[in-house]
Parts: sequence; C-alpha cells; structure tokens
Amino acid sequence: MTEELAKGLDGILVAESELSSVDGQIGELIYRGFSIEDLAKHASYEEVVYLLWYGSLPTEAELEHFSGQLAEARRLHPDVLLTLESLADADEDPMAALRTGVSMLSAYDSEASYTTGDIEASRKKGIRILGKLPTIIAAFQAYREGREPVEPDPSRSFAGDFLRMLSGEEGTPLARETFDMALILHADHGFNASTFTSIVIGSTMADLYASVTGGIGALSGPLHGGANQEVMRMFRDIEDSDRGPIEWVNEMQERGERIPGFGHRVYKVKDPRANILEAKAAALAEEGSEDRYIGYAQEIESHLTEMGLVEKGIAPNVDFYSGVVYDQLGIPFDLYTPIFALSRTGGWIGHVIEYQEDNRLIRPRARYIGPTEADFAPIDQR
Amino acid sequence: MTEELAKGLDGILVAESELSSVDGQIGELIYRGFSIEDLAKHASYEEVVYLLWYGSLPTEAELEHFSGQLAEARRLHPDVLLTLESLADADEDPMAALRTGVSMLSAYDSEASYTTGDIEASRKKGIRILGKLPTIIAAFQAYREGREPVEPDPSRSFAGDFLRMLSGEEGTPLARETFDMALILHADHGFNASTFTSIVIGSTMADLYASVTGGIGALSGPLHGGANQEVMRMFRDIEDSDRGPIEWVNEMQERGERIPGFGHRVYKVKDPRANILEAKAAALAEEGSEDRYIGYAQEIESHLTEMGLVEKGIAPNVDFYSGVVYDQLGIPFDLYTPIFALSRTGGWIGHVIEYQEDNRLIRPRARYIGPTEADFAPIDQR
Repeated sequence: MTEELAKGLDGILVAESELSSVDGQIGELIYRGFSIEDLAKHASYEEVVYLLWYGSLPTEAELEHFSGQLAEARRLHPDVLLTLESLADADEDPMAALRTGVSMLSAYDSEASYTTGDIEASRKKGIRILGKLPTIIAAFQAYREGREPVEPDPSRSFAGDFLRMLSGEEGTPLARETFDMALILHADHGFNASTFTSIVIGSTMADLYASVTGGIGALSGPLHGGANQEVMRMFRDIEDSDRGPIEWVNEMQERGERIPGFGHRVYKVKDPRANILEAKAAALAEEGSEDRYIGYAQEIESHLTEMGLVEKGIAPNVDFYSGVVYDQLGIPFDLYTPIFALSRTGGWIGHVIEYQEDNRLIRPRARYIGPTEADFAPIDQR
Repeated sequence: MTEELAKGLDGILVAESELSSVDGQIGELIYRGFSIEDLAKHASYEEVVYLLWYGSLPTEAELEHFSGQLAEARRLHPDVLLTLESLADADEDPMAALRTGVSMLSAYDSEASYTTGDIEASRKKGIRILGKLPTIIAAFQAYREGREPVEPDPSRSFAGDFLRMLSGEEGTPLARETFDMALILHADHGFNASTFTSIVIGSTMADLYASVTGGIGALSGPLHGGANQEVMRMFRDIEDSDRGPIEWVNEMQERGERIPGFGHRVYKVKDPRANILEAKAAALAEEGSEDRYIGYAQEIESHLTEMGLVEKGIAPNVDFYSGVVYDQLGIPFDLYTPIFALSRTGGWIGHVIEYQEDNRLIRPRARYIGPTEADFAPIDQR
C-alpha cells in the first residue's frame, strides 16, 4: 500500500489484456496482433468484433453464424421504440438517448439476469446488445426527423443496414465500405476512460447492459468522445467566416488555442487511423460525394506540417478525418459521438468479458482530507 | 510509471476527498468529521446530503430551502412514468428499471446539457436527480402491483414521502424515522466500486445523469450491492427449513460457506451502522411491527460471538440488520438494492462534484499480453 496519490491513474497498470495495443511513438495500433491497416483493408466490422471477443479471426462458417446472430438481434421491442420517440420529442441529446435506449434493452432480454462468469452466455448477451445499437440510433434520428423508423433488414451487413436505416437510402458500395472501415478503426483502443468505466462496472459482476450503459455515459463527456464534432465545428466556423483555413488556424495559434483534431495523449506521430480515413475521404470525393471539408483538412494538415508542428508530435489524430468522412456520408454532426459508441461497444464488451474471466472487484482508495472530529450542533444553534 | 500490476486497484490512492472516512479497526464512520452515530440520531437525510454537498450542516433557512427544492423535484414527467410502466409490464429487474428511469430523466431537464465545472449548477442538477429517485422506485413498484402510482406530496420529508408513495399508506412516525436513518447510514462510504464508477464517468466531464446511471449499474453487481438480500434469503431458507438459526449457520460453517452479513473488506469489528439498525429493529418490534427475523439475527450474532468469530473480525456488517429493518417496514426484498442506490446517490453526486472541482481524466493502462504480430489470412484460407 503506497501513500502516493495516483490522480487520473496515469501510468497505473490495472489489468492485463490481449485485445489491443497502441504504440504512440511509431503510430501503430494492433488488435490481437493484427495491424489496423490490415483489418481496415481486408476485414469487416463483424469479423473484427469476432476477433476481439473470440481471440481469432472467424472461418467463413463462424462468421456467417456470428453475423447472422448480430443481424437477427437488430429488431427493437415496440416499447423501446416508444421511449425513443418520447426522447426525440423531448429533443434529448443523442448520446443520452442512446444511453437510455441501451439501458432499457435489458427488460426485453429474457436472459438478462445476473448470471455472469459464463463466457459464452456473455458473448451471446453481447450480440443481443451490439446488434441493437444501430437500430436505436437510426430510430431516434428518424423520430427527430418526424418520420417512422426504417425496419431493420437482417440480410444486410451491420454497417450497410445502419446507413440504410439512418437515411432511408441505399447508399453506394463505397459509402458502406467506408463506414464499415470507420467502425473497425474505432472498435478498440486500450484502456480509455469509457472502456475502463465498463470494466469497473463489470468487476462487480453486473451484467453487460450495466457496463455498456456506463461506457456510453463516460464517452458522452467532452474530455473523451466528441472531439470529431469539435473539428467539424471549426470547419463550419471557417466556412461561415471570411477567412481561409490557414489564416484561421494561424489566428488560433496566436491566441494560444489547441487546434481540434491535432495531438493525442498516446500518439506522437500521425494517428494511423487518420491516414486510412484521409484516403477514404479522397475516394469518396472522387466518387462525387459532397466534400465540403476535405480541402480544409488537407490544407490545415499541410500547413501545420510545414510549420514543424507535426514533427513535434502535434499530429492529426483520428478525429481530424472521421468527421470529414461522416459529413461526406451525410450523417448529422451530433450523431458522430453515438457512432463512436456504436463502434466502441465491440471493444467495451470484449474487455468486460476478458476481465470477468479473471475478475477482481475494482475498488481504489481516497485519501481523506476532511476534518477528523466535528461536534454536532442542533439546527437552531448553527 | 511503474510496471507493477495493481489489479483491483487495492490500496491505490486515486484522489483526495473530504466527504467520508472509515476506520475499520475501531468501527468508526464519519461524514466530514461528524460521527455516523450523531448524524443518525440527530439529523435527517436531507441535512446529511446538504452536509455532503455543501461542506457544512445547514442552518434552518438553508435546510428549508434545500429540502423544498428536493421535494419540488419529486414529480416525474408522464413519459418517464409510461416507460416505467412498460418496464414493470416486462417484469424488469428493479435495479435495471431504476437505471433506465434515471437515465431518461435528462431528457426533461432543460439544463441537462454538458455545462459542467459550475459547482452550483451541478448541485442544482443533483437536486433534480436525487429528488426523483424515490418517485421512480415507488412508481415502478406500483405498476408491478397493478395499481396507479401515488402522487408525490412535496410537503412531506424525503424518507416519509417515499414510504407513503411505496405502500400507499401513511406509516408510523417510528417507521419514517427508521427509514430516514437507514438512508443516512448508506449515504456514503469512501471510494467503493459504484462511487468510483460515478467519478470515472464524471472525470470525462460528462454530466451527473451519466454518473448516477453508471453508479446504479455498478451497484447492481452481486459483488457490490445486494448483500442484504442475501441475508434475507438465508433467513427465509431457515424459516422454510426444519432447523433453527444456530443449527443452520453451524451447517454452513461445516460446509466452509461464508455467513451472509458477516465480515467486511474494511471493518474488522462490528460495523457501527449495524449497531444503530439493530436498536431500531428492536424498537420497531416493540411497536408491534412484524418481526419475523430479528430473533434469527440476534441468535446468530450471539452464537457467532460466543464462537469467537466476531473477535476474529468476522463481525456483523450493515447488511445483516438493514434487511431485517426493511422487512419490518414491509418493503419487498428486491427493492433493498434500489433503496441502497437511492441513499447512495447522495454520496455519488457529492463525490463527482468534489472531484470535478479539481478534475483529471481517469485513464489507467493495461499491460498488453496478446500477440505482437499476426499475419492476416483471407477468410477462405483460415
């Protein structure tokens, strides 16, 4: 027992994990040994989730079975839809609506009770949760737009059906492929605050509904999720101004402000996920998607590279290009963080399942610095 | 940065706090310097929450204002009631129903958005949340019983109005006083897993709805909340058996089983909260409340004391008597953990507000022990 204060738990090793590893010095991200580049290029989100949860890439039969179960889970109970409609009517924040929607799912899962410790049961529960997230987000968006939600179609892929339910339109193969890739890139990233939240909750042997609901809550915080919305806000402000992107960031730097989408607690070079998304943004633009912001992004990156910032470790991170891509796909700004949650739920569930296999309740200490003795005075004598 | 693994974060000091301190060697619990005995005897739950959130006991005027705001917050939006009715119809677990109910509240809070860092705004948001928890639990119970929820009455105390809404009946002054005391005893207890969950979520500067929803999720885990339900299950099993309580626990010990309600991670002597509740249970029995289990509890405690277990640190904890008391008050078994959450919400909110005043994102590390390199094989070659 040490008396040193580990505020923020920086550098404290809280568990061992086989799921993912980040090397911020060389810009490398791996899931169970596979490079993020290989996975983004060759795999689907369903394959990656299988890899995270089961430990190896699936065979064709395994993938078919797994994807089929995920797709079958997509449909929501009518009472969940009613609640989402109420939340949309009340103009609820989309992350809060997702949190309530996921929390409510347990009521309609006949196997939801607290029988944890059974890894296969946990994976099946994970499928029932993850499968429903696209439908929750898309239905909430439909209600906000005053239309009926699009019914899920279990014959479609996770990414493709989400885009279709979200907009009511088919979309191009490149759009589906790009969105699938974005989900893969955000699926896991070590012990960030939301993943850690899910694990702390899981360490009480609470069920996965509790863990994922908590993860969404943590990701809703402005210090965690939401950075890609900040990037887009900057682009929109540039667009609405009479200044060009270079002038804009120069002024930000003169004011000593941080440029959104640049710099990362772990990466000291360009985030590998940013490279992948940048290429996809270019391809989408070539295909003819509305590309309001890719020019801004590339100009700003070139400029900051020339200025020597990128060399100093203030390099573009994943958020700098994910917003550009989501915007090209026609997704509303305030759904970017819910989509981050959608993708990261694969990681959260994988980590909780892994942690519970060799569980230990997470309970740190606080140093008490309040008074040690106080005399109680009756209320009329205070 | 140390390479030592701190699994469970045992003994790791993660923050400083002025809220509460536990001395397990002498059986002492204090809230901001005040002994739990003084607070239980002389204060109300509202006073104790004020103490935890504001740092000092309120004057009469402060308490009146604070209690009034809490009482005004009690009413639920009709759509929250509709969702609770759906959850009751689906036979949802009461802790999960409470989690969903609290998560949904943010939609009807016009100041719910993520403007954290303003301590007075956080306290006001805390009041709007805490005030509604009694109504959520009572309304859910009403729907489960097939009746309409009892309307809140802001002229009544937090504890008293909850008991009235829960059963539809007035209850005796002693019943209200006892329940108020039970709320005080459970309001805070250092950095347990649910309090820590609330703080991790709060450290992303997510709002209090996210933190409290996460805390409820953590408390739902069988390793954390729910121990008093285990005690009651034992008493019920004894009642249904042909054996007396002493015979029963002797047999448990022969099988090497832990006696529910005995022993605690922190207390090495009798939990001070157990003493207070035991006295109240006796008083309620004297008043004529149905006292099925107090005899069992006292017989078992005497027996284990004679056996020398209590001396060895296997002493009665708060859960050993709280269930007895709740049962005397006519509260259904599966609401004991939601009531624990109701009370502890006061502590969760107090801790998050305190932590966010000098915030640092909580983000530990995991030691990666998976493969460092894996070659991606196309799916037909796996």
